[in-house]
Amino acid sequence: MGPIPAWFAGEEGMLLIGGYGAASLVDEVGDTPLFAYDMDIVRAQIRRFREAMPQALHLHYAIKANPYAPLLTAMAEQVDGFDIASGGELEMALAAGMDPARISFAGPGKRNDELEAAIFAGVTLNLESEGEGRRALAIGQRIGKTPRVAVRVNPDFDLKGSGMRMGGGAKPFGVDADRAAALGRAMIDGGADWRGWHIFAGSQNLDAMAIIETQAATIALAARLSEAVGVTPPLVNLGGGFGLAYFPGDVPLDIRPIGVALDTAFESLPDILKGSAFAIELGRWMVGEAGVYLTRVIDVKISQGETFVIVDGGLHHQLAASGNFGTVVRRNYPIALANHFGAPPAADPVTVVGCLCTPIDRLGDRIALPPVQEGDLIAIFLAGAYGASASPAAFLGHPSPREVLLG
Amino acid sequence: MGPIPAWFAGEEGMLLIGGYGAASLVDEVGDTPLFAYDMDIVRAQIRRFREAMPQALHLHYAIKANPYAPLLTAMAEQVDGFDIASGGELEMALAAGMDPARISFAGPGKRNDELEAAIFAGVTLNLESEGEGRRALAIGQRIGKTPRVAVRVNPDFDLKGSGMRMGGGAKPFGVDADRAAALGRAMIDGGADWRGWHIFAGSQNLDAMAIIETQAATIALAARLSEAVGVTPPLVNLGGGFGLAYFPGDVPLDIRPIGVALDTAFESLPDILKGSAFAIELGRWMVGEAGVYLTRVIDVKISQGETFVIVDGGLHHQLAASGNFGTVVRRNYPIALANHFGAPPAADPVTVVGCLCTPIDRLGDRIALPPVQEGDLIAIFLAGAYGASASPAAFLGHPSPREVLLG
Repeated sequence: MGPIPAWFAGEEGMLLIGGYGAASLVDEVGDTPLFAYDMDIVRAQIRRFREAMPQALHLHYAIKANPYAPLLTAMAEQVDGFDIASGGELEMALAAGMDPARISFAGPGKRNDELEAAIFAGVTLNLESEGEGRRALAIGQRIGKTPRVAVRVNPDFDLKGSGMRMGGGAKPFGVDADRAAALGRAMIDGGADWRGWHIFAGSQNLDAMAIIETQAATIALAARLSEAVGVTPPLVNLGGGFGLAYFPGDVPLDIRPIGVALDTAFESLPDILKGSAFAIELGRWMVGEAGVYLTRVIDVKISQGETFVIVDGGLHHQLAASGNFGTVVRRNYPIALANHFGAPPAADPVTVVGCLCTPIDRLGDRIALPPVQEGDLIAIFLAGAYGASASPAAFLGHPSPREVLLG
Repeated sequence: MGPIPAWFAGEEGMLLIGGYGAASLVDEVGDTPLFAYDMDIVRAQIRRFREAMPQALHLHYAIKANPYAPLLTAMAEQVDGFDIASGGELEMALAAGMDPARISFAGPGKRNDELEAAIFAGVTLNLESEGEGRRALAIGQRIGKTPRVAVRVNPDFDLKGSGMRMGGGAKPFGVDADRAAALGRAMIDGGADWRGWHIFAGSQNLDAMAIIETQAATIALAARLSEAVGVTPPLVNLGGGFGLAYFPGDVPLDIRPIGVALDTAFESLPDILKGSAFAIELGRWMVGEAGVYLTRVIDVKISQGETFVIVDGGLHHQLAASGNFGTVVRRNYPIALANHFGAPPAADPVTVVGCLCTPIDRLGDRIALPPVQEGDLIAIFLAGAYGASASPAAFLGHPSPREVLLG
């Protein structure tokens, strides 16, 4: 399995999360399964970002990564903006206290009621098509509000080595680069409040050089499009892409070279972008390592010489860790025995499975753990992003997981 | 894509579901996205089962396939028992009016509170391990109720060609065949109410011959285990395995040869099984074809020559159709344009994607549809099983899908 994030340590054999022993934390919150998020880790990641990046660079949080309400409220004070992807996320962002002028809304299928709510609130729409632009203008006119709009561009390049490719080739996202300027111009002529460009080429990337190249291409594309429109964009959203190390062989991303390259780029910006602000939009990278999924061992059983550890959680809470969320080949997330943290592994590997009655509910395949007993606590790391909210919680009628924010 | 289930037809170009035009149905229910289930189709499948199978064979419904409450209530009158997989499903089964004596509870990770609720209600536990057997006896003693128990057996064979293999090799499910009789004996000696065997070798199978072979092996195994215990089992649950045709090249399962083979088997049962009842447990096969997922087109856009149809639903409601639920290679579920049903396809294929801001939200990859416009209704078939309840509904903060039972 992959490396346990370096933030975590044990005390007398008990995993600590946000200063609490895992077992006491479960007692305090009430029961397993439990997602615990350590806001100190989130803040430390954000500090790392601020230290490495040019001071002028805005940091946006893509709330789809983890929309847990207490976390959002804490994030609203830490970042320069929220990126949302639905009308529901708009409500969450506003409830968290984020200024609507610092919220932008991307998503290829915005319904008219979502557009209306966003325009009414004064949120920036990252337009995904000419049709969406027309609908936004019509709704703005109808409700007597000027829509704030940027154009999301499907770039003519991708971010090489990304977990999710969002650009390069035919895509459902944004407007092809060769039609983006015309849409920008049409929106300005139509009376919209022009906010600039959203160019998102990929996500979950561990290759700093690839990110640097993509950001350079993104700035060049934004300049070219802005020249064609004839207007300096107030904001250029450079997308995200910063990845986390989940699996064996993953080398953690060093973001410092990216900051150095951006410093240089910002010193020699094309004239048309000299008055622009720039943003990077991150979700997973900020919150992923801050979360731990704690689940209790219900049974340890042997089948044909193989040991199965059966826990009270499963893919209904942590779909991604089961390998059923955008991955082709299942690999193990980092897992530990929380109440014997750091103890030497048993001679034989074990397989950790969830409580669901389906063979796809597999959380750790033949992994090395200390000897495991009924009642022990299993910790699955990297549970802070695309966990609780990205899993089929109702499947098989089990209770929803508990969540808690620490720090 | 695969074949549209033969139950469906159009009227003046409009897909009919349970006698309603798709568009009027959406109007009546209120909005898309919508799961519509036609109980007439479920009843017709059940009739098909009853006609093909020996009269004595019990039919159980595995409610994990679709636990929509009105459907469960209707199913309680149609089948001989419910199979549940959690304490939550126990509550649903009881609320649907199913007699607890006809409910059995399988699942590798039953918590003590779930065991207690099931024993209290008088539900049969399909024991998955020796440890679970001990816990059941202890809880029964504590609450003064005799647990009703069967042993779930991990058979020493699998169901060849299954979508999900549940037997053969090391498995988290059940007790290995060579230890099952000892557990059965221990439960009887411990004072439990002995119910028999649960032997589930695989699911989603389209090969009648493979199912026949597996059922023969299952009966032989049940006889061997019963001889070892020395008691005729009140019930032998032969598992399920009946599959549906989802994809191109899938040939629908003809269940009649299975019934013929079972007739023969029942006429020449080993002596120890002569007083036993037999059950088959099905979920998907009964309800899968009865469901249609209706979702409205929000946008039609071109990217680099490819046409994308963007709908207001997506993988947050229909994870399996996006190819992210236990499938290695994504394939297209049958899809139609509900409001131009049966119209000739346009010259070029289109790609149907959901509204989520992620590249994995893909519902139909380069499929042939009639010309599609904003506002049209897309129907995704085979949405009656593992749809609404098996998808990450909270992901990206969109509203939950509506559901309706017809017929």
